Amino acid sequence: MTTTSQEPGVADLSEKLVYLFGDGTSDGDRDLRNLLGGKGAGLAEMSSLGIPVPPGFTITTEVCNAYYDLGRAYPEGLTAQVEQGLAYVEALVGTGFGDPDNPLLVSVRSGARVSMPGMMDTILNLGLNDETAEGLARRSGNARFAYDSYRRFVQMYGDVVLGVGKRDDTDADPYEELLEAKKRSNGVTDDTGLSADALRELVGEYKALIRERGQEFPDDPWDQLWGAVGAVFTSWENPRAVVYRDQYGYPASWGTAVNVQAMVFGNLGDDCATGVLFTRHPSTGRRQLFGEFLVNAQGEDVVAGTRTPQPILAVDRGDGPPSLQEAMPEVYEELTRACDRLEQHFRDMQDIEFTVQQGKLWILQTRGGKRAGQAMLKIAVDTVDEGLISEREAILRLDPEQLNELLHPVFEEGAERHVIARGLAASPGAAVGHVVFRPRDVVERAARGETVILVRDETSPEDIEGMVDAKGILTARGGMTSHAAVVARGMGKCCVTGCSTLEIDYAARQFVVLGPDGTTQTVREGDVISLDGTTGEVMLGALPLSEGQFPPEFDVVMKWVDAARRMKVRANADTPEDAVRAREFGAEGIGLCRTEHMFFGADRISAVRQMILAGDPHARRDALAKILPMQREDFMGILRAMAPFPVTIRLLDPPLHEFLPHEHGDMAEIAHALNVPVTEVERRVEALREQNPMLGHRGVRLGVTSPEIYEVQVRAVIEAACQLRSEGLEVAPEIMIPLVGMPEELRLLRERTIAVAEQVMSERGMRVDYTIGTMIELPRACMVADQIAEHADFFSFGTNDLTQTTFGLSRDDAGRFLPAYLDQHVIDRDPFVTLDRDGVGSLIQLGIERGRSTRPGLKIGICGEHGGDPSSVEFCEQNGFDYVSCSPFRVPIARLAAAQAALAD
Amino acid sequence: MTTTSQEPGVADLSEKLVYLFGDGTSDGDRDLRNLLGGKGAGLAEMSSLGIPVPPGFTITTEVCNAYYDLGRAYPEGLTAQVEQGLAYVEALVGTGFGDPDNPLLVSVRSGARVSMPGMMDTILNLGLNDETAEGLARRSGNARFAYDSYRRFVQMYGDVVLGVGKRDDTDADPYEELLEAKKRSNGVTDDTGLSADALRELVGEYKALIRERGQEFPDDPWDQLWGAVGAVFTSWENPRAVVYRDQYGYPASWGTAVNVQAMVFGNLGDDCATGVLFTRHPSTGRRQLFGEFLVNAQGEDVVAGTRTPQPILAVDRGDGPPSLQEAMPEVYEELTRACDRLEQHFRDMQDIEFTVQQGKLWILQTRGGKRAGQAMLKIAVDTVDEGLISEREAILRLDPEQLNELLHPVFEEGAERHVIARGLAASPGAAVGHVVFRPRDVVERAARGETVILVRDETSPEDIEGMVDAKGILTARGGMTSHAAVVARGMGKCCVTGCSTLEIDYAARQFVVLGPDGTTQTVREGDVISLDGTTGEVMLGALPLSEGQFPPEFDVVMKWVDAARRMKVRANADTPEDAVRAREFGAEGIGLCRTEHMFFGADRISAVRQMILAGDPHARRDALAKILPMQREDFMGILRAMAPFPVTIRLLDPPLHEFLPHEHGDMAEIAHALNVPVTEVERRVEALREQNPMLGHRGVRLGVTSPEIYEVQVRAVIEAACQLRSEGLEVAPEIMIPLVGMPEELRLLRERTIAVAEQVMSERGMRVDYTIGTMIELPRACMVADQIAEHADFFSFGTNDLTQTTFGLSRDDAGRFLPAYLDQHVIDRDPFVTLDRDGVGSLIQLGIERGRSTRPGLKIGICGEHGGDPSSVEFCEQNGFDYVSCSPFRVPIARLAAAQAALAD
Repeated sequence: MTTTSQEPGVADLSEKLVYLFGDGTSDGDRDLRNLLGGKGAGLAEMSSLGIPVPPGFTITTEVCNAYYDLGRAYPEGLTAQVEQGLAYVEALVGTGFGDPDNPLLVSVRSGARVSMPGMMDTILNLGLNDETAEGLARRSGNARFAYDSYRRFVQMYGDVVLGVGKRDDTDADPYEELLEAKKRSNGVTDDTGLSADALRELVGEYKALIRERGQEFPDDPWDQLWGAVGAVFTSWENPRAVVYRDQYGYPASWGTAVNVQAMVFGNLGDDCATGVLFTRHPSTGRRQLFGEFLVNAQGEDVVAGTRTPQPILAVDRGDGPPSLQEAMPEVYEELTRACDRLEQHFRDMQDIEFTVQQGKLWILQTRGGKRAGQAMLKIAVDTVDEGLISEREAILRLDPEQLNELLHPVFEEGAERHVIARGLAASPGAAVGHVVFRPRDVVERAARGETVILVRDETSPEDIEGMVDAKGILTARGGMTSHAAVVARGMGKCCVTGCSTLEIDYAARQFVVLGPDGTTQTVREGDVISLDGTTGEVMLGALPLSEGQFPPEFDVVMKWVDAARRMKVRANADTPEDAVRAREFGAEGIGLCRTEHMFFGADRISAVRQMILAGDPHARRDALAKILPMQREDFMGILRAMAPFPVTIRLLDPPLHEFLPHEHGDMAEIAHALNVPVTEVERRVEALREQNPMLGHRGVRLGVTSPEIYEVQVRAVIEAACQLRSEGLEVAPEIMIPLVGMPEELRLLRERTIAVAEQVMSERGMRVDYTIGTMIELPRACMVADQIAEHADFFSFGTNDLTQTTFGLSRDDAGRFLPAYLDQHVIDRDPFVTLDRDGVGSLIQLGIERGRSTRPGLKIGICGEHGGDPSSVEFCEQNGFDYVSCSPFRVPIARLAAAQAALAD
Repeated sequence: MTTTSQEPGVADLSEKLVYLFGDGTSDGDRDLRNLLGGKGAGLAEMSSLGIPVPPGFTITTEVCNAYYDLGRAYPEGLTAQVEQGLAYVEALVGTGFGDPDNPLLVSVRSGARVSMPGMMDTILNLGLNDETAEGLARRSGNARFAYDSYRRFVQMYGDVVLGVGKRDDTDADPYEELLEAKKRSNGVTDDTGLSADALRELVGEYKALIRERGQEFPDDPWDQLWGAVGAVFTSWENPRAVVYRDQYGYPASWGTAVNVQAMVFGNLGDDCATGVLFTRHPSTGRRQLFGEFLVNAQGEDVVAGTRTPQPILAVDRGDGPPSLQEAMPEVYEELTRACDRLEQHFRDMQDIEFTVQQGKLWILQTRGGKRAGQAMLKIAVDTVDEGLISEREAILRLDPEQLNELLHPVFEEGAERHVIARGLAASPGAAVGHVVFRPRDVVERAARGETVILVRDETSPEDIEGMVDAKGILTARGGMTSHAAVVARGMGKCCVTGCSTLEIDYAARQFVVLGPDGTTQTVREGDVISLDGTTGEVMLGALPLSEGQFPPEFDVVMKWVDAARRMKVRANADTPEDAVRAREFGAEGIGLCRTEHMFFGADRISAVRQMILAGDPHARRDALAKILPMQREDFMGILRAMAPFPVTIRLLDPPLHEFLPHEHGDMAEIAHALNVPVTEVERRVEALREQNPMLGHRGVRLGVTSPEIYEVQVRAVIEAACQLRSEGLEVAPEIMIPLVGMPEELRLLRERTIAVAEQVMSERGMRVDYTIGTMIELPRACMVADQIAEHADFFSFGTNDLTQTTFGLSRDDAGRFLPAYLDQHVIDRDPFVTLDRDGVGSLIQLGIERGRSTRPGLKIGICGEHGGDPSSVEFCEQNGFDYVSCSPFRVPIARLAAAQAALAD
């Protein structure tokens, strides 16, 4: 039974705070992902399925939110429920928490509703102190294991919970320094050379370090546990987790769960192992287990990438150490069965963590596996073919943004490759950039517009910002499931890992590669290299890039998608070339053709400037007469490229000032053409300057005050349409008046537009179909949409400007404070990227409702950049839009998003 | 029966297009003012009352709109109804339209629902041609009268209907030239010296002139009539009518009616007269007939101001010609009775036109009389005292804008007056300005910021724009009801008319005044004079001005007003001085205290600049520490001045860039204070520049990113409140966060504000009451008002910025196109003056509805400039605002407007 708590400041906290799992049963299941996090829900589900998972319990995400609401304190009732949970685990495992004779050790892990690999904190081996360590040594008969576990625990706890660790990037890790010193004093080079006694000493030294830094390591396992739980909750708001969430647009309110689970050990000897795997190949989607393991190791060793691990399958072995299939065939068989069971159950490719303790397999985690865009499509097609899921489910599971990856560049075929090293093809794609070693330098250089490749021994969660900004990532260590590989695949970014011939010298800012012939090659920071994430090759210099190709599965999937969607998808395109590309990507028309971009052409800007600066209507008409044939050509090109689909042509929108010269030479040229002194041109340029050009004399306001400009544009459109029509082409121009806020503006411009169109058609002795509509991009236009609709054949929501005016927020100036707003969570998403539903969306809904109240069949589209954003596309579907329009490259994304929205409806 | 017509393009045209009146009955009445116009409705009503009005009929305003809808053509059915109307008049008068033996002559006059004196066209004596003129001569036995009427008719018709007249301002009137030539050739100096034959010749010469100019005078009376009707409709859109409508905010859609009425003649001899009068004095409100008449004249002679007329009452005679009371005592008695009857019936002071034809009185028109602000109040109080109207009616009839006049400056008492001339005190008030003779020069000089007095022999409707821009008007001719006098009173503008000692030489741009001692004084264009519209005195030089005083009736009326209104009225005030003045005007609090205005003080701008340009929070806090005591003093002053009323203090709003220096010297000073190079200051100033500062880093955005600024301001407010509270004063500060668009902004700032306030109160060991609210000035704030209201004690609608963002219209830049929008009727009113109900108003309604859905008692106010605009105040009343806030000078206007809105509800 769940009822709301009366805890002050804690909204809607359920009574049940802790969910148990283990031994073939569980309190929760996969449907409780939002409450238990992905990991907790997966453990509960697996336990119910009879998969061997170490028993444990999950503290819910609600507790995390309560923890913050209460100013970092636990809600009432949690203590009792955690104690009950631990008693349950003790009973199942047959050990006692803090029992010196037979101690229970637990792991404490984070787990949000989506996977955020390595972003939050984890504590292993919790429960150890001087007494229980001694007990563990006795019980396991392996004192070295016990004290190694103990020293790892103290190190991890000190670092993560007590905050005693590296002070900054340049600081050495103090635990590692003590470890190295211990190795030196013991005359050994490897951790494994240290004896149990040496490790016990090290524990003492670690504790002394912690004490020196003003903290105290807690010996009581319960104190340890509560400290660790708090640390996990706290880590939800650590900077790297926040950056990661921002990158993916996850809100802070989701919170993280905490999973407390009995430890199992992959490091008790050579019959122990630990590993991670995907049930299908995460880069290609091929159906085969794909992963890595390490014998006699703890799980963190694999993910951290510090040892290059062994493959799962024999076929992936190459000339490396034996695969799991070869080394532990029985475990491999059991693992294969468990994977099948999990794939069948979850009906998706799984990402699984496992540990083998003394020959017994334990599954520690399962979750939907992250995959590259190409793998996403192949897995979708395969699982549909296998009957695992329906087409509808396949569509709904696709990540539209990942289609972008398919368009990522590849290296031109046949280009000569000067390969200097080979690593693992960890994340497909191609990248060219300047070598940079420090993540913060990546950020700086990228901000200056440089393309950069991040080169590291291995990456870790604190490198996340540099990884976001790099074009590609190259690491010397780590496997296919290392941090770098997993994160890069998640971002759809090219990555090569485990490139073991690289020797990086951070101090000298260079790396050296040992060639197979024994020669070495030195690459310095700033040198350009090329990375092939599909082959694992590293090349010197910049290889020529070409556009990515869609894999064959793309067409299969897009056929399902197009059958499923209701809305049309158009592209924003200003040139015939863009129009052609848009059609290739499946656009069904042009939703926004900006005529002003045509005005900037080198061959016409001078005429445009003369038109603007003309002193009288006569001179203006002279200049416009020069522009007319050029615009007609423009429109013929674009209408021809898109025929028979509609093309929405927006009449001149920006303030005239944008076209004006600022250089003296350009001004002199105009002065000469207009036959006036340069000072007069300067005066007119100055007179056109505006305080707030965004809210100034632009759009339809130009149309009202300078009718001749729009008249020439309309003439050019209709002349172009007539010409193509006489060539037998079907064309459908839609003339769009921008920035309308008053019904009378559109009435007037519609009247003038029709007058010009009628005149052209009568001159040509023929008729063409065309429509007249408006961009809805001002709040007032939404409020009086019923009156505007009287004069409009269509509405196209210009959500860029509508967002600016609704928020009172200039996009050009928002850079000064929008980042702070996102950091401080004043706003969750950049409203210029994802449509703000509460404000802008609410206005759009009003606009549609009122517009269609006057004209029920009113055609409605969107042409802001939101038209290619999946969440915004969903909004459009929910609100009865007829089409969305976006940049050509985002057309496939919009098609998929439109299908998902239609199916979700 | 009225049904809608099926006429294409004509919306909702009734079947009845023509309304008859005369002989004690009528089709219409005063309630049909919108349909029949003010004049038509008045004639109908008077006729029903038994007042002697010449019979006639009214063509409705709907026909005017249909006329424009049909592209200047008459709707079907009009001809027949006009013919029936004329037959009715013929029957009553006993004459025939076009009958050569006994011709009916008619006047054709415009008449909109409000009086627009002289703005539109009028034709008199219509029906005359060579035959009927001869017949009129026979019937009247006065050939000179008949041909004088004929030549006047041809002149008027040629000018008004056929457009044959002066080509421009500098052109001489061709009819006057022919008249002058005729007088010269006949050796006479006065019109009345011309014989019937001479006048008949003149008619021929006028017709020849018209023919020369490519037109033809129509001899057929019916052609004359239709031409005249069309001319009246056309005159609705003539430039001076449009300027006048814009001045008063009347929409084009009202249209004008046309009144066709049997002519009566005040010019048939010395037993004839024509005049105009007010039933009470239009400047003072005194209860007495006040007006003028001319013996043996047509009505236009009085209004045009070409002859200085005789008074109605003997007491007003002075040393002029006899009054009506003396000259025609019987007519005077009948007129007095008719005036009483009309005042009793219409229950308001009337403006009446009359004509005496051969001893018989005819009333040609009655309407509510325009009156000066002072008269408006006196008449209101008197008519309530007389039991004519109730207090409620009195309030509803007042024009709030006219209260402004009472605040118009007066000359300081006791100042020495160098009086150079005396005229009629035509419109009260005082004005000082440069003498200018041409209306177009007035417009130009006023645009440059000069204060100007327009000096003319007389004014005419085409001078209207110059009259609007002049501070005062002085004419050499014309009486109290001349064009200049009537228009000036309507505008509340100081005016002296009939100053007959002035001799104006337009060519030399000067006037000469003849003093009583025979000396002359020459005043040249550009010289400064002072005008006293209350005494009629003209003085050389600039007399010192002081504030106007409210008459005793003001307090009486405002007592009614305050009892009638529901909303509170506050003032926008930034200084203690403004606050004191606001209280004098009846403000009940401050609705907007802009803290940034305090920042510009010479003593503090340097500290403000240091604060803005500080390189780090430490330097910023140093600068803010200097600002804190100053702000505390500011707030103490203003809270003290307004105690115990509430004071809404808006935290810093404008972009910081506005405070920054642009001069090198100022930059150097800041650089010195901050101990950085000047180039660094220049760099920081430049870095703060924005593309669209209106939509930039300002308001709460500053509060979010630079918390220390608002913290210091809040501290200053609460410290000030504590200090005053400890002095025993009751204070009620309301802290207002500007530019909130996202609920989280307000939540955050509310939290920070409370933290500072609590700290200050704990430091002082006392508590003060304060509230926290926000300005609603962004469309998004209206859309998410339900969420914002969770954190707000009050909403204050900032309609200036809300208008800017809703329209996407920068007030600073709108000057480039808003005038064109008003001219072309794309928009009817300037939305920065009168709240746009359709767009901005509709958003406000949403904001209130949503805000109060969360917080039912939410206090709601307005603090944009609309808060002092009567139409906008009405909107606020209708939408449940708690208060309006406006500039101190507009507080009485807002009080009255609030009462009217409450009573109208």
